[in-house]
Amino acid sequence: MAFGWIDEQAAARRRAGLVRTLRPRPADSPLLDLASNDYLGLARHPEIIEGAAEAARRWGGGATGSRLVTGTTELHGELERELADFCGFEAALVFSSGYAANLAAVTALAPHGSLVVSDAGNHASLIDGCRLARGTTQVVAHADPDAVRKALSTAKSPAITVSDTVFSVDGDAAPLAELAAACREYGAGLVVDDAHGLGVLGDGGRGAPHAAGLAGAPDVVVTVTLSKSLGSQGGAVLGPAHVIDHLVNAARTFIFDTGLAPAATGAALAALRLLRREPERAARAREVARALHTRLTASGHEAVRPDAAVVSVRAPSPDQAVRWAADCRSAGLAVGCFRPPSVPDGVSRLRLTARADLTEGQIDRAVGIIGDTRP
Amino acid sequence: MAFGWIDEQAAARRRAGLVRTLRPRPADSPLLDLASNDYLGLARHPEIIEGAAEAARRWGGGATGSRLVTGTTELHGELERELADFCGFEAALVFSSGYAANLAAVTALAPHGSLVVSDAGNHASLIDGCRLARGTTQVVAHADPDAVRKALSTAKSPAITVSDTVFSVDGDAAPLAELAAACREYGAGLVVDDAHGLGVLGDGGRGAPHAAGLAGAPDVVVTVTLSKSLGSQGGAVLGPAHVIDHLVNAARTFIFDTGLAPAATGAALAALRLLRREPERAARAREVARALHTRLTASGHEAVRPDAAVVSVRAPSPDQAVRWAADCRSAGLAVGCFRPPSVPDGVSRLRLTARADLTEGQIDRAVGIIGDTRP
Repeated sequence: MAFGWIDEQAAARRRAGLVRTLRPRPADSPLLDLASNDYLGLARHPEIIEGAAEAARRWGGGATGSRLVTGTTELHGELERELADFCGFEAALVFSSGYAANLAAVTALAPHGSLVVSDAGNHASLIDGCRLARGTTQVVAHADPDAVRKALSTAKSPAITVSDTVFSVDGDAAPLAELAAACREYGAGLVVDDAHGLGVLGDGGRGAPHAAGLAGAPDVVVTVTLSKSLGSQGGAVLGPAHVIDHLVNAARTFIFDTGLAPAATGAALAALRLLRREPERAARAREVARALHTRLTASGHEAVRPDAAVVSVRAPSPDQAVRWAADCRSAGLAVGCFRPPSVPDGVSRLRLTARADLTEGQIDRAVGIIGDTRP
Repeated sequence: MAFGWIDEQAAARRRAGLVRTLRPRPADSPLLDLASNDYLGLARHPEIIEGAAEAARRWGGGATGSRLVTGTTELHGELERELADFCGFEAALVFSSGYAANLAAVTALAPHGSLVVSDAGNHASLIDGCRLARGTTQVVAHADPDAVRKALSTAKSPAITVSDTVFSVDGDAAPLAELAAACREYGAGLVVDDAHGLGVLGDGGRGAPHAAGLAGAPDVVVTVTLSKSLGSQGGAVLGPAHVIDHLVNAARTFIFDTGLAPAATGAALAALRLLRREPERAARAREVARALHTRLTASGHEAVRPDAAVVSVRAPSPDQAVRWAADCRSAGLAVGCFRPPSVPDGVSRLRLTARADLTEGQIDRAVGIIGDTRP
């Protein structure tokens, strides 16, 4: 049988209690959501919804082709200009997902003969970018500029260092300024994924690179998602114009993919404009994260101090993490549950999202449920 | 300088006349479109647009998380059930792009120690899937079941054969029934990308695997896009339920990507329902392709006989292909221009899309312009 071997893997997953199943949610879920990446609570904001609907009406249901053929509308151009301007970079290029943007940035900037220095905690899409790239990858210790320096000292050239700005699992931030300094010592480029920083960190949510003084730097390239703080779908690469032009010509996940749908483009643009108008949303997300962390640790939970809007709470084991998350859900609270094999360090945890639109009452309720259901 | 090396590549591209630039289109372009992949002309159909807008209103601008956390709505489930049912497969899984669906299918079904037999003309996303997979890839001659047989005869196990059903560049079809027979001789699985077949080939547009009698086969997995005939964005994998469950648990571009935006999900669902109600759209796309081919070859053009809705016309050189496409555009006709390095065989051509909604008058006009501008 052609696919018989997968049944053995499925049986092994069942034995290990690691089966993942989809749980479709209704439009009017009664759960308090601390599980999504909707950091600013914009996904259901009327302006973002109208941005999506209006773009579909004006431009159609799909982009109809590759960005290089018919898939670039003036709306894509508008989003790219405003996104680059907001984050302080010369140019931007929009992709159908953050995953595609990361594959593009890493593969196009790591040609044959080059070195890629990659943080051990990087997101799957950066890791897959390293695997697809023609260059050689060296994985270094998590958030360790000295390890980066040591790896770069062995490099011929060109070389890049690749890192998340905020690591999705624990919510901790990379030492961006030190990483950039290490790269500059060796003439290497720095490529960072600001998926969990945009909209949360930096002046008015301009992102972690902006906060670290790296916006517009000639040797820094940033990837972002449109599907987290901006409440839509898609990803983008930001950087110097000649790097963006290079991606247009060389990045396979740009050239051979259909352009981002107009509705997603329009929703992201509406969210970006809203964030410009209401910059306090970014600070509020950070404030909610700190409040969650303070109250959880005060009740004796082991939680990582949040650098952005993700709060990670340790669970004693994968099984107990799953049960804890399920008990939270039964009590009306949706939390993320991260466990092996989708965490790099083998540690199981609940992952909480500090949405900017959570009220004090909702924070109290969440902390209460997490405490009541503790294994 | 960190990214200085890309300027040398850019200069080389300029010297070779191979610079690609983006050309944002307005919403009300006066061009006659034979360049998009909107095969059924549905991207701007009112029902598809309303499907997108209504989904955004009901579900928000984005899916808000991974499909495994908060990113699966009941709308995703509905689309997956109806898509599987329409194409005749047990189950379906929706992705944010066809590219992501192909990466998922190939990597999850080609574990360490396995063999992947890959057609030399396959799409970039299948090739990247092969590169990312832990199995070993053997590239075989284009559309050649004997070459597949020979490659499989050397395999241990498991093994899969990977092929487009309709090749995007020339519009020719793979010999699906013979490929399936070759795979069955050796107990191998068949993974085919029906991006250019869905909505065009098979009974009422059910796709090339359906037309070849392979729908629902236990050893066949099909990937499709939602961004071509269905006028939206996204991709899907169709196959036996245990294969789909395996992807949910093992495919990185599923697990670590944000779910498809509600608007794109809703637009695709509306298009699928429209196609069920108006199955003649599929036959019309094929009829337009044959008409274009007949009239172009009658006027002395060298065109490949179309197996689906893509008509490929040879150009004498990359330079002349670019000039020809530009002259068509000046005369009011948008056509695709494929040339090295994005064609596997080094041949430059115009690529025409036979949209189901083209009128006889539009077909005449297109053929006239292509003839008048011939280099």
